[in-house]
Amino acid sequence: MGAVKTKRMPRAVREQQMLDAAVQIFGRRGYMAASMDEIAELAGVSKPLVYLYLNSKEDLFTACIRREATALTDAVRAGVRGELPADRQLWEGLQAFFAHTAEHPHAWSVLHLQARTHGEPFAAEVAAMREEIVAFVTRLVAAAAREAHRDPDLPEREVAGLAEALVGAAESLAAWANATPHVTARQAAATMMNFAWSGLGNLMAGHPWTPPADEA
Amino acid sequence: MGAVKTKRMPRAVREQQMLDAAVQIFGRRGYMAASMDEIAELAGVSKPLVYLYLNSKEDLFTACIRREATALTDAVRAGVRGELPADRQLWEGLQAFFAHTAEHPHAWSVLHLQARTHGEPFAAEVAAMREEIVAFVTRLVAAAAREAHRDPDLPEREVAGLAEALVGAAESLAAWANATPHVTARQAAATMMNFAWSGLGNLMAGHPWTPPADEA
Repeated sequence: MGAVKTKRMPRAVREQQMLDAAVQIFGRRGYMAASMDEIAELAGVSKPLVYLYLNSKEDLFTACIRREATALTDAVRAGVRGELPADRQLWEGLQAFFAHTAEHPHAWSVLHLQARTHGEPFAAEVAAMREEIVAFVTRLVAAAAREAHRDPDLPEREVAGLAEALVGAAESLAAWANATPHVTARQAAATMMNFAWSGLGNLMAGHPWTPPADEA
Repeated sequence: MGAVKTKRMPRAVREQQMLDAAVQIFGRRGYMAASMDEIAELAGVSKPLVYLYLNSKEDLFTACIRREATALTDAVRAGVRGELPADRQLWEGLQAFFAHTAEHPHAWSVLHLQARTHGEPFAAEVAAMREEIVAFVTRLVAAAAREAHRDPDLPEREVAGLAEALVGAAESLAAWANATPHVTARQAAATMMNFAWSGLGNLMAGHPWTPPADEA
């Protein structure tokens, strides 16, 4: 019974280290160019161990998408105090979203870009996360409409469309913010509120944008 | 010199028929599942002729992306009268955008979904189109700021961020509108104006959304 030289770690801990390394490499190099050698090296383990634990490059990538999608939705949920008015909830949610995507740029690249550009199975994983975020925003917009007592004037379909637009805008802005030097998460969140809430706020107050009269 | 039975058509016409068929099949089935047999059949030509003219499935897909990207940007450009105020230009541009994506749902699926989910070379093709549209919207937002005489108060970076958000919102809304029964192009454009312009309009008028005082 000699001393065990190899540092022993629980499998769960090792797996997280592999996923940490994989997210970085997938985010930096792109899915196609990412090499399992580089991922193993960055994780400080042998390549066979990566295959033993995560099975294949595809499965490793899927595990990355799932972990990072959960981390992002958890961060947004945790950032929002449900008892606040809808605009404050949106502001908190956007701050949490942009803070998380700024702190984890490789993870955001995996979710927003890599997962959507390498085939339907990966795209479906990220679509599930997106649906959850759209549902959250839909509830917020509907709550804002209720707060403004405008329920009957804002049909369910309009609420759904606004939520889709808001999520698309935030996704696009997060990618831009990460690619543009010196844009802080708070600035991006404020730009998004400027863009979205003042518009939604007007709408809730019964001041929609109206098409020019000469088109009627 | 017997009568020529085969209907002879200029190569350019045949190619467009092949691209018409390819956009439909790629849009309906997805890039991976689309078969060259089905494309040739729908185009009413032999499969070898498709390969002779378009070379490979990859090249055919690239040709589809290029043609549809040009058609979309041309449609938006043609829909906008440059002499109008910025909000009217945006309204016309959005109507043209949603009309085109609604009339060509397979083309929009190719550009928004398929081209982005099957590898970087295709994604780069569609990114070029997107940059052109972002540049167009950036000019509109900057023009709106000038009209409102707010140049010094709306930094270039804020304008760029707003344009990115607007384009992301419109992309997201177009995908949703095409997937949701009975949403007309005009309704989608109006939802987008409600969402975006009232907000931008407030901003131009010097009424940005402001974070809650207790965060200062």
